[in-house]
Amino acid sequence: MTSAESSTLKQEILEQPEVLRRLLEQERATVEQIAAVIRERQPAYVMMAARGTSDNAARYGQYLFGAVNHLPVAPASPSLFTRYDQPPALGNALVIGISQSGQTPDILKVVRDARSQGALTLSITNGAGSPLAEAADHVLLMNAGEEVSVGATKTYTASLMALGMLSAALAGDDTRWDDLARVADYTAEITGAADAIVKAAERYRYMEACVVLSRGYNRATAFEIALKLKELTYMLADPYSTADFQHGPVAMVERGFPVIAAVPEGAVAADIIDLLSQLHERGAELVVASALDEALALAHTPISVPQGMPEWVSPMALVVPGQLMAYGLAIAKGLDPDHPRQLSKVTITH
Amino acid sequence: MTSAESSTLKQEILEQPEVLRRLLEQERATVEQIAAVIRERQPAYVMMAARGTSDNAARYGQYLFGAVNHLPVAPASPSLFTRYDQPPALGNALVIGISQSGQTPDILKVVRDARSQGALTLSITNGAGSPLAEAADHVLLMNAGEEVSVGATKTYTASLMALGMLSAALAGDDTRWDDLARVADYTAEITGAADAIVKAAERYRYMEACVVLSRGYNRATAFEIALKLKELTYMLADPYSTADFQHGPVAMVERGFPVIAAVPEGAVAADIIDLLSQLHERGAELVVASALDEALALAHTPISVPQGMPEWVSPMALVVPGQLMAYGLAIAKGLDPDHPRQLSKVTITH
Repeated sequence: MTSAESSTLKQEILEQPEVLRRLLEQERATVEQIAAVIRERQPAYVMMAARGTSDNAARYGQYLFGAVNHLPVAPASPSLFTRYDQPPALGNALVIGISQSGQTPDILKVVRDARSQGALTLSITNGAGSPLAEAADHVLLMNAGEEVSVGATKTYTASLMALGMLSAALAGDDTRWDDLARVADYTAEITGAADAIVKAAERYRYMEACVVLSRGYNRATAFEIALKLKELTYMLADPYSTADFQHGPVAMVERGFPVIAAVPEGAVAADIIDLLSQLHERGAELVVASALDEALALAHTPISVPQGMPEWVSPMALVVPGQLMAYGLAIAKGLDPDHPRQLSKVTITH
Repeated sequence: MTSAESSTLKQEILEQPEVLRRLLEQERATVEQIAAVIRERQPAYVMMAARGTSDNAARYGQYLFGAVNHLPVAPASPSLFTRYDQPPALGNALVIGISQSGQTPDILKVVRDARSQGALTLSITNGAGSPLAEAADHVLLMNAGEEVSVGATKTYTASLMALGMLSAALAGDDTRWDDLARVADYTAEITGAADAIVKAAERYRYMEACVVLSRGYNRATAFEIALKLKELTYMLADPYSTADFQHGPVAMVERGFPVIAAVPEGAVAADIIDLLSQLHERGAELVVASALDEALALAHTPISVPQGMPEWVSPMALVVPGQLMAYGLAIAKGLDPDHPRQLSKVTITH
């Protein structure tokens, strides 16, 4: 059993402001070079290949490249490459593989096949010298330092930052780089309140299932918080965009049903608050991470985040309360947050 | 309270063989015409816009168009169109909107914006004369007859059939049309065993949560069975591809944990059986729909389906045991399968 004090997971959560600052400083030149090649090739769309936490980073990319760069994003469906031996035609695509370890065979196969088809390929990985780093035309290293805990935290936010940097470089927009430069401070404000969030998790010691909601850019946040809860506490945590949630799953909500929500400022705030108000009226118990008073007022457990975060960078900060909540719940349940049962750091899938 | 005997949901489940037969017979000429236009335009990729059950049909399309027609498929992320006002550039795309009712405003907006950008657009709907039917360049009507139950069943399998017909027409391959012609018989064999499946659901009367697994073409099946369970029984049912499940969520499984799996013959059978064997060793309780003895032998509750189904059409049949299981569970729990709480037939999202 890892004691709360010596948890590497907690240390890695707290390292995130520094990891994000370093990545932004050290890799901007590389990102600008990659963006120049992409602009020259003018891909019709982006295909992203990833699993688990990295796939949640890809979910962020789906909104990011769509909204900021007008590039549609298609998920790779790795089994098309590895099991059906029928990869789609990718000649005019930018294919991005994301993997913390750079070892996952199916992601590697997507990138290799895409490159052999003549598509432009990019790997985003924390594994310098890994097979994935070697496989693509270009590689963007997270420089996050070794991630020891099985539950990925700093490599998740680093993946988001890498994608955000690429999007800003493609857009050629200095105000976006300014937005990215403030992210480390936003996350530091949240990690500064870590102990309070861990403490707030105690109330949920006997929670067995929950849903996690957000929308748009932060759909990724809902998915990643749910995955952390599953990995670290073994509870069923079901993530949804608020729009998808209304098409059926909302039927699950009854009095006392726990709902965790990330509510960013910006274009989808009103939609999310509207749904949360309905769930609140039905007696759902809400845990809300937001800077918006209207959202926080609905929550039994409100978690304040910094005000004025541009929505497009907010996923890098809004996931942090969820990471801390999952960590706190693991501690409250007497589980080892550093070594979840049945998981290893590198998952091999084909 | 609807009694089991008069349930429209059960009637609509049982209608599926007839609905599939009719759609295949009546709409083939229309589908061939649409396919001719698509072949002429040579889209670089497909974008699909859908919510809820229709989005699970789109998940099938992702593998179908990828493996059979070498077309990458991107999900639409409707909020890019409706909330961020930043739709991606779609000039060279085929954009398909799927909606049973043809009324959902966000799906409608995606199709209208895509058409105004000059993309080729297609609506698949059961709503003749609906706004979605009018919005696209081409429309493919399901002809499923009115679907009265809130939980969609026959319009789901009809959506799969419509996509399957389009894929076969694009491939110009007569053996694929032969495969489609056998689907109604496959589903009829399963609906013929409806009472036994409904009866088998009784054992799960007090189940509060489960996961639903499959892979590849039948990833859609896992998602749709999970959605039916949530809508009709309010339990948490978490769907995964077996590959994604291994990247974290597998940590949830402990002794007695219920796992529902659809195991098709073909390219992903060995992967799924391998994972189910591991879960079986850990004491998970398995409900397995399959034609494969090796898969059925692992299950506490085995559900046999017809042998020899080509994998690419198998999702139209393998979902049916899940529909019947969800219906049977609703009855066992004393719930009204025709009128789930908090849901209405047409969900309006923006």
